[in-house]
Amino acid sequence: MVKDIYEQVMTLAKRRGFIYPSYEIYGGVAGFYDYGPLGATLKNNVEQAWRKKYLLQDNCFEITTPTITPFEVLKASGHVDEFTDITVDCSKCKRSFKAEDLLQEGQILEEELTKKSLKCPECKAPLEHPHPVNLMFSTTIGVGKEREAFLRPETAQGIFTNFHLLYRHNREKLPFGVVQVGRGYRNEISPRQGTLRQREFNMAEAEIFIDPQDKTHPNFHHVEEYELLLFDNTKEIKVSAGKAVKQKIIANQALAYYMCVTQELLLSFGIDPKKFRFRKHADDELAHYAQECWDVELYSDHFGWIECVGIADRSAYDINAHIQATGTDMYTKRPFDTPIVVQKQKIIPKMDVLGPLFKGDAGAIKALLEAMEPSEQSQLTLEYKGKTFEIPKESYEIVTVEEKQTGEKLIPHVIEPSYGIDRILYFILEHTFKQVTKKGEQYHLLGLPAHIAPISAGVFPLISDESLVEQAKMIDQELRNHGIPTYYDEGGTIGRRYARMDEVGTPFCITVDHETLETGTVTVRNRDTTKQQRIKNTHLTHYFIQHLVKRG
Amino acid sequence: MVKDIYEQVMTLAKRRGFIYPSYEIYGGVAGFYDYGPLGATLKNNVEQAWRKKYLLQDNCFEITTPTITPFEVLKASGHVDEFTDITVDCSKCKRSFKAEDLLQEGQILEEELTKKSLKCPECKAPLEHPHPVNLMFSTTIGVGKEREAFLRPETAQGIFTNFHLLYRHNREKLPFGVVQVGRGYRNEISPRQGTLRQREFNMAEAEIFIDPQDKTHPNFHHVEEYELLLFDNTKEIKVSAGKAVKQKIIANQALAYYMCVTQELLLSFGIDPKKFRFRKHADDELAHYAQECWDVELYSDHFGWIECVGIADRSAYDINAHIQATGTDMYTKRPFDTPIVVQKQKIIPKMDVLGPLFKGDAGAIKALLEAMEPSEQSQLTLEYKGKTFEIPKESYEIVTVEEKQTGEKLIPHVIEPSYGIDRILYFILEHTFKQVTKKGEQYHLLGLPAHIAPISAGVFPLISDESLVEQAKMIDQELRNHGIPTYYDEGGTIGRRYARMDEVGTPFCITVDHETLETGTVTVRNRDTTKQQRIKNTHLTHYFIQHLVKRG
Repeated sequence: MVKDIYEQVMTLAKRRGFIYPSYEIYGGVAGFYDYGPLGATLKNNVEQAWRKKYLLQDNCFEITTPTITPFEVLKASGHVDEFTDITVDCSKCKRSFKAEDLLQEGQILEEELTKKSLKCPECKAPLEHPHPVNLMFSTTIGVGKEREAFLRPETAQGIFTNFHLLYRHNREKLPFGVVQVGRGYRNEISPRQGTLRQREFNMAEAEIFIDPQDKTHPNFHHVEEYELLLFDNTKEIKVSAGKAVKQKIIANQALAYYMCVTQELLLSFGIDPKKFRFRKHADDELAHYAQECWDVELYSDHFGWIECVGIADRSAYDINAHIQATGTDMYTKRPFDTPIVVQKQKIIPKMDVLGPLFKGDAGAIKALLEAMEPSEQSQLTLEYKGKTFEIPKESYEIVTVEEKQTGEKLIPHVIEPSYGIDRILYFILEHTFKQVTKKGEQYHLLGLPAHIAPISAGVFPLISDESLVEQAKMIDQELRNHGIPTYYDEGGTIGRRYARMDEVGTPFCITVDHETLETGTVTVRNRDTTKQQRIKNTHLTHYFIQHLVKRG
Repeated sequence: MVKDIYEQVMTLAKRRGFIYPSYEIYGGVAGFYDYGPLGATLKNNVEQAWRKKYLLQDNCFEITTPTITPFEVLKASGHVDEFTDITVDCSKCKRSFKAEDLLQEGQILEEELTKKSLKCPECKAPLEHPHPVNLMFSTTIGVGKEREAFLRPETAQGIFTNFHLLYRHNREKLPFGVVQVGRGYRNEISPRQGTLRQREFNMAEAEIFIDPQDKTHPNFHHVEEYELLLFDNTKEIKVSAGKAVKQKIIANQALAYYMCVTQELLLSFGIDPKKFRFRKHADDELAHYAQECWDVELYSDHFGWIECVGIADRSAYDINAHIQATGTDMYTKRPFDTPIVVQKQKIIPKMDVLGPLFKGDAGAIKALLEAMEPSEQSQLTLEYKGKTFEIPKESYEIVTVEEKQTGEKLIPHVIEPSYGIDRILYFILEHTFKQVTKKGEQYHLLGLPAHIAPISAGVFPLISDESLVEQAKMIDQELRNHGIPTYYDEGGTIGRRYARMDEVGTPFCITVDHETLETGTVTVRNRDTTKQQRIKNTHLTHYFIQHLVKRG
């Protein structure tokens, strides 16, 4: 009987140290997983390859910010109000479930609840009381005078709240990109789907800040001919990036460019191109901040198509939200070719009126007023810190000034490629997993690409002869000193040792034999071809650096 | 006037994108910091160098586990009860303060409170009500049926709770080491000391599992002559690792070995050896789990000596605690040279009695009983899940059996080098910071070692001539394609561009001039010597790989 692929992959993953269910000795906790020795290294290698693409090739900056995030930040970003799942409770055992998980296609929640046809998966009593539940983990900062906070649902807000500093760091020019790689949290109501739906997960996000009137990308000509694998919700199509933008299948160059980067990156990790597609979000699927979004979906023989990367045009949503909430100047400037002089109406706030009226908020309100366009209304209103402030007419005057303008103020738009690292890692394992029958025995092999494989080379003495062992250990250490991860093994037959390495995706095995002592050469066996070649010991380091050149 | 060094370093760090106070636009939150573009890359480089040492040179495994940790794990590890600070509250404004921060040397808390001599730093009212406050951030997992949890105070417990799987991964041999690099959390009552005392911080921990009767290290002979910088609480001494162990200044080889690794690593990051020392914990300073501990203390001209790394012998404390709490078999085996046959008294649990008595816990209790040494007591007691179970005599029998033993069961001891990455990063900045006066102007320079500098090379066209710009951009991209981070700059004079790079610790600057177009050579300027040499464009990649060879 053919075992289920998920079961096979996870059995291998646990047995060989890729993935462990967390806190298993304490009965486990749904939605939490550990990466064991090989999994953690695979993850590091994937993240380093990702960084190489975004930081070195695409010139993005990386920053890293706390996971604990104060309430105000996530109130402004919309997560306090919008990051929710509709939940239903069991009328008997009081357990809670995510409504979406229980509905069949075409069913409408309210109707099913009225019919009492939705039953508790645990105790079979009818479900009731649909209500939104926020999915953020909450905590408090400090003791005594506590401050409400959440664990971040995405790394992106840490970038947006620093936008003005990052813009200055880039010497006040657009476009530029900033990335963050790290943990995100989502307190799933009832996590299923194993490692694909975790409550604490690893993400890699890039926020590319661009001029809203110029969504081109300076390197688009490099990818114009690159064939994207798209799915328009009815059929799969292959189309070049250039054509997709021209035919308005994809909204702009910047989106299409990062779709190319993403496809290329994932396929370089060993993802099967036949199980890869971009699917465009329908309007009613879009997140609260998104204007257009393309998901990378990968196909699993167990789970079907699963979203692993989202590439969204978040427009000016987030930066605007933080400007509204804090009054910080987070605008950028689009320079004019030649400065112009304009007659302009300007609001001049009167601090002697604003001060007594708004006390501690007066400074921020002054800044917001100065940034506003004057209007004819007798009473201005301002949104700040989630409150509405009425600004009386006597607290400012409107004057006409002549102003030399060197550029136009604007809030940049954001293109966001957001990668779910854990899902990608699972799919790398599933897509590279092969089971073959060798001499009547089942034999497992992971076809991991050399630049992400946790172990680059197994190093074996042919037999446990002292001189061979010594030589093998020397080669092992020499490779490690050059940053090449190896696995020294003297246990069992050579065939057995090859099998151990094949099973964890090690691309090469080096065997030290008696010829080594005479000629100074070793055999290097290639996992995929199973061919062996003799190489001089002294050339080994160079040989591996060449083969692993893609490694960060 | 000479400005304070901390102020100088932090001003530079913020202006040039190393460190930003978190959530500044929302008024900031004490104890949280962001790493900006250069800081995040410096951090990555330091962590990669750390990994190279521990994973490649020392053959440790890396794993990565969740930050959210269920109550039971941290109850067993002792953190729920012991990870506390004594706190006093203000009698008037009700703010809370860490007592230790308010006491002068020699003062005793209870006496000062009785004398009402401890005043609130904010409102000057007397302080009162000393009580321990747990320093873990708490949260809950799930909705409805919630599960109490904390953010991990250390990464180590994620390793201990997987010990049995990791031991199997190492094919059931001791010694071996496992590391984790990631976030830790400590809900400080009143964080001071800027970036040195953060509520969310980055750590790198290694847990080295060794035989309690054999605390030697297989590579100790490599470091025997290495001179350690020790401080015995009265004077500083230099002593070789070998001598320190022989004279019992350091308890064992394993501790001394990781002290050598640590000193070598930190000095390679640019830490000033004159501001480096190991200090041994006095008995009353030891953490609840530690048997012996050496701190690396680094000297700051602002803060004085500050603990940055702790190297502790945690003995069998943690693994034993998790065995007691869960009944999991986490023992290792010390093999005998030849198997022996022994007469042995053995506890044979009776499941027909245990089952009805302990229900769901019966299985774990059976395992714990089997692992116990029989005793003459009429009533056995067991600790399990924090509860005490009385085991009646009729629920087991004691029989004498003949047993062939291939080895002895034992709980391994743990040597733990634990690094505070954020503190180390701050000290790298302070120790490499130089201020010089050049032509009457103040000039800042960071002497970061090449292998950790965020930018390896500045790349400049001498003037903004199209052909020079094109050539410089080509060189820039070529280096980036080989994994070498560069900074392309065509703004301002060459002197100004050198200054920008010196200030952020970039070790090399490459200038493309008219000679480049004729001879295919560029000038490479060395930050520390300010000397320039001409190098062929085609040799540049090789030149940098040579100079940056220490990079992970």
